[in-house]
Amino acid sequence: MCEETSAKQKVEISESVMSKNDRFAAENRKILRGRGLYTLNLISSPGAGKTTVLESMARYFGGRMAVIEGDIQTRRDAERIERAGCQAWQIETGGACHLDAHAVNHALGHMDLDSDELSLLAIENVGNLICPSGYDLGEDMRIGLLSVPEGDDKVLKYPSLFSTVDVLIINKMDLIPHLDFDVDRAIEECRSLNPDVNVFTVSARTGEGMEEFCGFVESGFLRNTG
Amino acid sequence: MCEETSAKQKVEISESVMSKNDRFAAENRKILRGRGLYTLNLISSPGAGKTTVLESMARYFGGRMAVIEGDIQTRRDAERIERAGCQAWQIETGGACHLDAHAVNHALGHMDLDSDELSLLAIENVGNLICPSGYDLGEDMRIGLLSVPEGDDKVLKYPSLFSTVDVLIINKMDLIPHLDFDVDRAIEECRSLNPDVNVFTVSARTGEGMEEFCGFVESGFLRNTG
Repeated sequence: MCEETSAKQKVEISESVMSKNDRFAAENRKILRGRGLYTLNLISSPGAGKTTVLESMARYFGGRMAVIEGDIQTRRDAERIERAGCQAWQIETGGACHLDAHAVNHALGHMDLDSDELSLLAIENVGNLICPSGYDLGEDMRIGLLSVPEGDDKVLKYPSLFSTVDVLIINKMDLIPHLDFDVDRAIEECRSLNPDVNVFTVSARTGEGMEEFCGFVESGFLRNTG
Repeated sequence: MCEETSAKQKVEISESVMSKNDRFAAENRKILRGRGLYTLNLISSPGAGKTTVLESMARYFGGRMAVIEGDIQTRRDAERIERAGCQAWQIETGGACHLDAHAVNHALGHMDLDSDELSLLAIENVGNLICPSGYDLGEDMRIGLLSVPEGDDKVLKYPSLFSTVDVLIINKMDLIPHLDFDVDRAIEECRSLNPDVNVFTVSARTGEGMEEFCGFVESGFLRNTG
């Protein structure tokens, strides 16, 4: 659960929490870069399709990708990723509404990251458009996923996320014929907050647009590893 | 943003925050019951259709209903409710990931609640399946809204909400033909946490099932005031 406190308490706690988080994020970055891993942090509402995007990525990247799954409860998502053929580690936050760098650091200690083939670590955050946006996990690329059924008005409603992402994915494009969703409006509103954002429109379910997105991620880690 | 603290700090802050919230919730309940208002707290993911449900309710209840809208940012939802013909007050939380009883108390002070016709106050919480579930706002009925595109696995992933709701609404039933969503599974998993939950399957967009749900709310406030 989120706590609310006095303004003074808030500033003090916030500073100490964030400096602790930033220390762990820096340590994660060192570990991950040391092993030549390029790291993604996927953030969205519950049910926007993060796990389906990762299943589709698992088919593209195979053993080159490992996944950390964040959920309040259940191992369901890690099991889906394992079935899709990738190594997966489930963090059950037991109530906490976001991942933090410490939890990811702990997960890294449990995973087998030594394979030469491994180049990519994808972290699926807890389904929440708000709280995860304040926490650097040590990633190279932050991805905000918005799905068509959520509506084209969500970018400006959740600016703390969409102003800080490197990539906006608009998912569930296969549902466009059944809904009133203005793709141009969503992209335009995102660019108004975040002019350099890279945008991909996909349907992880049908595969539409996924190859282009996976190619973009691949060029990121190929550039990274030289 | 959500803060994380030491376990000891957490317990202390949590107790003081919750007792403060509970005091305001009790005061809200006194104010609302004093004015004969029956109060709903609607909680869901971003984009599950809370505002569309309220627009549909506005057509059923007309001037008998007033609405408090909670959002991180923008007045978009209050404007939609006003266009649908009901009084609306927008709380912009400016970053906070849930409403609390104090914010609702403040809103009540700004609203015109004196009309004899007014019987129902609906509070639309911030779009978030996690953080709002810990905060009593002074409501009579807590409603969890799950939409078909989010997937039928969400109830057990977000038990802090779905174990505490009086009503589960499954919305966007018009999209069932285009998606793999097992309605029986979602209801069964909700009943496994919460045996007495009342369930409604609706499409707020087409109106399907909304009359039955509105009739249920109406019987609640008629029982309350009668």
